[in-house]
Amino acid sequence: MQYIPGLAGVPATESKISYIDGQKGLLTYRGYNIMELAEKSSFEETTLLLLFGELPTRDELNDFDQQLRANRRVKYNIREIMKNLPETTHPMHMLQVVVASLASFYPSTEYMKGGTENQDYINDVTVKIIAHMATLVAQWEHMRNGYDPIEPRKDLTYAENFLYMVTGEEPDPDWARLLDACLILHAEHTINASTFTTMVTGSTLANPCSVISSAIASLSGPLHGGANQMVIEMLEKIGRPENARAFIEDRLANKKVIWGMGHREYKTKDPRATILQQLSEKLLLKKSESGELSQMFETALEVERVCEEHLGHKGVYPNVDFYSGILYKEMGFDPKMFTSIFAVARSAGWMAHWREQLQNNKIFRPTQVYTGAGNSCYLSLDQRSDGIRGVLSKQNNPDA
Amino acid sequence: MQYIPGLAGVPATESKISYIDGQKGLLTYRGYNIMELAEKSSFEETTLLLLFGELPTRDELNDFDQQLRANRRVKYNIREIMKNLPETTHPMHMLQVVVASLASFYPSTEYMKGGTENQDYINDVTVKIIAHMATLVAQWEHMRNGYDPIEPRKDLTYAENFLYMVTGEEPDPDWARLLDACLILHAEHTINASTFTTMVTGSTLANPCSVISSAIASLSGPLHGGANQMVIEMLEKIGRPENARAFIEDRLANKKVIWGMGHREYKTKDPRATILQQLSEKLLLKKSESGELSQMFETALEVERVCEEHLGHKGVYPNVDFYSGILYKEMGFDPKMFTSIFAVARSAGWMAHWREQLQNNKIFRPTQVYTGAGNSCYLSLDQRSDGIRGVLSKQNNPDA
Repeated sequence: MQYIPGLAGVPATESKISYIDGQKGLLTYRGYNIMELAEKSSFEETTLLLLFGELPTRDELNDFDQQLRANRRVKYNIREIMKNLPETTHPMHMLQVVVASLASFYPSTEYMKGGTENQDYINDVTVKIIAHMATLVAQWEHMRNGYDPIEPRKDLTYAENFLYMVTGEEPDPDWARLLDACLILHAEHTINASTFTTMVTGSTLANPCSVISSAIASLSGPLHGGANQMVIEMLEKIGRPENARAFIEDRLANKKVIWGMGHREYKTKDPRATILQQLSEKLLLKKSESGELSQMFETALEVERVCEEHLGHKGVYPNVDFYSGILYKEMGFDPKMFTSIFAVARSAGWMAHWREQLQNNKIFRPTQVYTGAGNSCYLSLDQRSDGIRGVLSKQNNPDA
Repeated sequence: MQYIPGLAGVPATESKISYIDGQKGLLTYRGYNIMELAEKSSFEETTLLLLFGELPTRDELNDFDQQLRANRRVKYNIREIMKNLPETTHPMHMLQVVVASLASFYPSTEYMKGGTENQDYINDVTVKIIAHMATLVAQWEHMRNGYDPIEPRKDLTYAENFLYMVTGEEPDPDWARLLDACLILHAEHTINASTFTTMVTGSTLANPCSVISSAIASLSGPLHGGANQMVIEMLEKIGRPENARAFIEDRLANKKVIWGMGHREYKTKDPRATILQQLSEKLLLKKSESGELSQMFETALEVERVCEEHLGHKGVYPNVDFYSGILYKEMGFDPKMFTSIFAVARSAGWMAHWREQLQNNKIFRPTQVYTGAGNSCYLSLDQRSDGIRGVLSKQNNPDA
């Protein structure tokens, strides 16, 4: 069989969870168009849909929501772990550490004993992880600045409570609804690197907290998550709409990345970007005292126009990161948090893929094309001449 | 393209690091037969070989060894993190947490800035991780029992120091040499699930500590690591050589797993099992006051004989786990530690694959065969009848 770098186009699973039509700019979760979900559903309901394949009844939704609310609290030993991390710790690195630790705070080594799934444990740990993600990210935002974290509240929705825990203020319902839509739009996106990590690690029957922690590691890489943080830094550098053309054309001429533009899966505008732009334009106008959009949003629109001129014929359009970053910024979130908000939302999709993997599990063990040395003969130290050719670095300060 | 579960036989990389010939029972690292390495090399030297592709000169080996020794110490904030984990935390779960935290204690987000590798950082973090693995595993062994950890020493080899940190006693040179051979034999084994996890997570350019932490998650799963712990539990259950036949034949009749027997890659005896059996038989006889092998070792030999009778024609022979578990037990290690000793050794191979992945990196993004629902229409809560059909569990004690 032929070796294909990155396994691009190689099917690694059969899946019922989500579907992309890149030509039409279509994304569905369990058959439901995300346009409709973003407008009509909630993160709680969408999570149930992803996990179980159907929309819940009112009782089921209410039951799940109550479980999520009841599982928002974080143990003080976990907060001690967080306190012992350097204050410079990136939220994604904090998340990887803490979610890995949940495997010990909520252990089960035998959820697949004898080939039979322990469905109660699987459901409970799913709730525990998804409920904890928001609390951990929000609390770290205060702790990394040296402040006590804000305790979660049970009387708020998932999005409202997250907004409350980050800002410390009574959540604005309009902003909370927009954040809810962002969480829905980021909850799932077929087999990307972090979801694939979930499947590979999950296939060894590792503890689900260990599995999600490994997915967080994958998403923390700059080639995967992290683009929405770069979008903001780019827009801040551009500053004003009238600077956009020169900036973009200069980057194109020098073949530099335009952050938030283009997506491997879409030949048209990312449907998530389309709906985010619509939702945010409406809200920003409503919130604006001057009746005008913010300078950053106007700059973003101009960047999109210039890019469409130059790149539209190549199928390069804004992706979801382009608008989610701007929205988070308008909500008052530090750009450092952006990837971790992505992780909060994506935990729903990861858990859905983990559960799907278990249903028909086979451990991942692909093969390699060996391109290395043939048989070599071991020479004693005195007989060697070349060695590794001095590629080892000198450590000046090993104990630092 | 056809979907192959577990990607079995699908090439996921070109690699120069190790090679298996399952028909001949051959395993080479960078072209060197592991039989020869286990007898003549050290874990330090084999690690350099795996990382850089050549055997080092005396100066290079000495330099690397000094760096490893200088990087054994663990910061007290990291020990505080360990102290806040439950005492029941499995060594593999502790490792995943702490190695993930190293990304923050020794950060670098820009080791691949602009497509150019920061070789100094890559080399330094390689040393840091491999040196830390042994200290973390040994220290947790004391801490999970409520005792202060034993500080590492700089005057000992990697294997000697590990033995010292676990037992608290001056290391016996014969046992240390055998442990060294075990580390060499476990250091690398082509593209298994944890190595593949390393490649997938690494391909997003995540921090290398995050990457190795995700590999640890993969290895912690009972389908991947963990078999050598099960071997001991099986041998203890059998008790005496004369009980072996009945026990094994009963398990075969009931189609139950015989732990430590068979390996997907080998149609003959795992070459690592062969050399471990030879080395350990020699040492156990030398150490034995009675001039006889231990009861557990005799039981293992009898299990091997019975299995060969019944399974030899199917190419099912002992694998490396079968003998390494017995050896670790004879060294006085708690079977709970066994998988984490595997992880200590395998960190060398993981780091080699991480570095190889960077050299020609492309993010892993395979595809899926979509088998889910077609377009569905969103119904409001009141219009729904079926829901998710009550598969959600009742949580009795959400805050536990």
